Amino acid sequence: MRRSGELEISLADVDVPEPAADEVLVRIEATPINPSDLGLLFGAADMSKANVSGSAERPVLTAPVPEKALKAMAGRLDQSMPVGNEGAGVVVKAGSAAAAQDLLGKKVALMGGAMYAQYRCIQAKQCLRLPDDATPAQGASCFVNPLTALGMVDTMRSEGHRALVHTAAASNLGQMLNRICLKDGIALVNIVRKQEQVDLLRLQGAKWVCSTESPVFMAELTEAIAATGATIGFDAIGGGKLAGQILTCMEAALNRNAKEYSRYGSTTHKQVYIYGSLDLSPTEIVRNFGFAWGMGGWLLFNFLEKIGPAAAQTLRERVAAELKTTFASHYSHEVSLAGALRMEAIAVYGQRATGAKFLINPGL
Amino acid sequence: MRRSGELEISLADVDVPEPAADEVLVRIEATPINPSDLGLLFGAADMSKANVSGSAERPVLTAPVPEKALKAMAGRLDQSMPVGNEGAGVVVKAGSAAAAQDLLGKKVALMGGAMYAQYRCIQAKQCLRLPDDATPAQGASCFVNPLTALGMVDTMRSEGHRALVHTAAASNLGQMLNRICLKDGIALVNIVRKQEQVDLLRLQGAKWVCSTESPVFMAELTEAIAATGATIGFDAIGGGKLAGQILTCMEAALNRNAKEYSRYGSTTHKQVYIYGSLDLSPTEIVRNFGFAWGMGGWLLFNFLEKIGPAAAQTLRERVAAELKTTFASHYSHEVSLAGALRMEAIAVYGQRATGAKFLINPGL
Repeated sequence: MRRSGELEISLADVDVPEPAADEVLVRIEATPINPSDLGLLFGAADMSKANVSGSAERPVLTAPVPEKALKAMAGRLDQSMPVGNEGAGVVVKAGSAAAAQDLLGKKVALMGGAMYAQYRCIQAKQCLRLPDDATPAQGASCFVNPLTALGMVDTMRSEGHRALVHTAAASNLGQMLNRICLKDGIALVNIVRKQEQVDLLRLQGAKWVCSTESPVFMAELTEAIAATGATIGFDAIGGGKLAGQILTCMEAALNRNAKEYSRYGSTTHKQVYIYGSLDLSPTEIVRNFGFAWGMGGWLLFNFLEKIGPAAAQTLRERVAAELKTTFASHYSHEVSLAGALRMEAIAVYGQRATGAKFLINPGL
Repeated sequence: MRRSGELEISLADVDVPEPAADEVLVRIEATPINPSDLGLLFGAADMSKANVSGSAERPVLTAPVPEKALKAMAGRLDQSMPVGNEGAGVVVKAGSAAAAQDLLGKKVALMGGAMYAQYRCIQAKQCLRLPDDATPAQGASCFVNPLTALGMVDTMRSEGHRALVHTAAASNLGQMLNRICLKDGIALVNIVRKQEQVDLLRLQGAKWVCSTESPVFMAELTEAIAATGATIGFDAIGGGKLAGQILTCMEAALNRNAKEYSRYGSTTHKQVYIYGSLDLSPTEIVRNFGFAWGMGGWLLFNFLEKIGPAAAQTLRERVAAELKTTFASHYSHEVSLAGALRMEAIAVYGQRATGAKFLINPGL
């Protein structure tokens, strides 16, 4: 992000780092493009005006950043920022510590940024050892989606709710959450945008699926919420009316059983957490659900900080144990590092559309 | 509120009730029209199409209710609902219990609805004994505004914040909050709409006052928030962009001291509670403040429920002790019960404008 108002993304040659005693060097073989990566990758740049120059092997992408957005980006001007939240690969070099040596030659999953690279040096204790028969592609998305889905269920429980609502529910993350809820016996209300996504989730055993495309969406959502007793929701969309509509339907469901009119609405607390920004436009809340409500941001890293390392480790171990079942991810495209910077690729994954999930293989 | 879609407000003749053993009968001499009363009084009726018929002593007000709003009002259709959250008067009859007898002939303040009446029967323990030299007008607003202002400070402390932001800050409530904060040494950022309100609050000792009218409002608000360290706000407006702008300025203030760019924003939790709806339009949130944020409803009754009766009594006693200083209220108009239903009066107090505060005297 240049002070002049231009975003530049390119591949940089860097020396392969030497692991310290407690570190390992991982050859990255698979790293996904998550919505959470796109924020750092593109920032507030206007990607409709992006341009790619350079060679096919060394593309250089530039895009203008609207002036008013530059202010919010003040902290990252004229800095080179490595990208990539998570990935998987093989440990090719290890420091002298036993924990590091134990991982030599093993497949591991890792989280911590800068994964869009051929090699990543990282502390041994930050690695999650993968089963021997797991492929790097299977292990590439061990953290962000699985821990986010588990974090939603954990947050639901710790804040005293017994069922939950999820939007963009046909996403990789949404399908994962559906599998967790089916396995753990938690009622989940899935909100999707299209009938084919309703069908997809139903095939995967989802009981409650509502499509915003339906002319009676609000009535159907209220019905599902009344049936499940959901009073907490997690919204990946962020912009527009949906987050507020969830609160509206929760209130309508609660008032079905109200014995008398209260001008202040139900006293049951209703909560929606916004954890993504698939829609970057403003959130619009029509406040027709009384006073016992909350909306707020939800971020995996803040959640992990809050529950502490021991509880986080328990979650990570569950992910490794159920890697090929509950926490399986699916990719529509596999590309090289240079391939991720091609305009045709960006045009697809930049849409953040359900079903279009990219995996980068830096070895290609 | 009739099922046909029409709101009707009138004065009804009812028998003067007989107090039970632990009750007293209070002759209401002063009862304010608070914004919190207007919600019950007018609901979602379209007051621009209101009509008053009947005699001057017995006016009958009718107003149409838009069809889509009728749904939210389902619980109050075809019901007669008494109005008036709080008031003050003289105990003219008392039940046999000692607590009731002790109040006979005394001035008291009371809260609990149905105060827009000549007499109100209420439990003795719900009365707050007023100082002998206090007038009913001085005691009429002992509960809603004072306890709300104290509740904001209490919420600020219990949620770990050290300074607060308040909107519609030149209101009776806002001036009260300013006096509490000055007395208790708490930094308060006041947001108002006009320069004359800035002047008013400054005359009352307020240090930080920002007007939304200023062309550099956002910069001024950020400056005030940075200087005070406010990370919680209470918003009486509800609709429009202001609640979100407070979060934006809090984030900007926090990022001034940030050492490096974080794509997820500051990790300090920023909170805005919406406790009123001076603007009934949707709340619009431009999410440019990271993930550590919350917005929610705040309601006095839910707050009192949460802190419990002992803590609530401590707050009430402070109000009685500082009735003529910290918790003084000012009224621009005094009207009779019938006078409150005159179109000219409604045109003024229905605006919910700062400075236009009505007191009903049912004895007139």
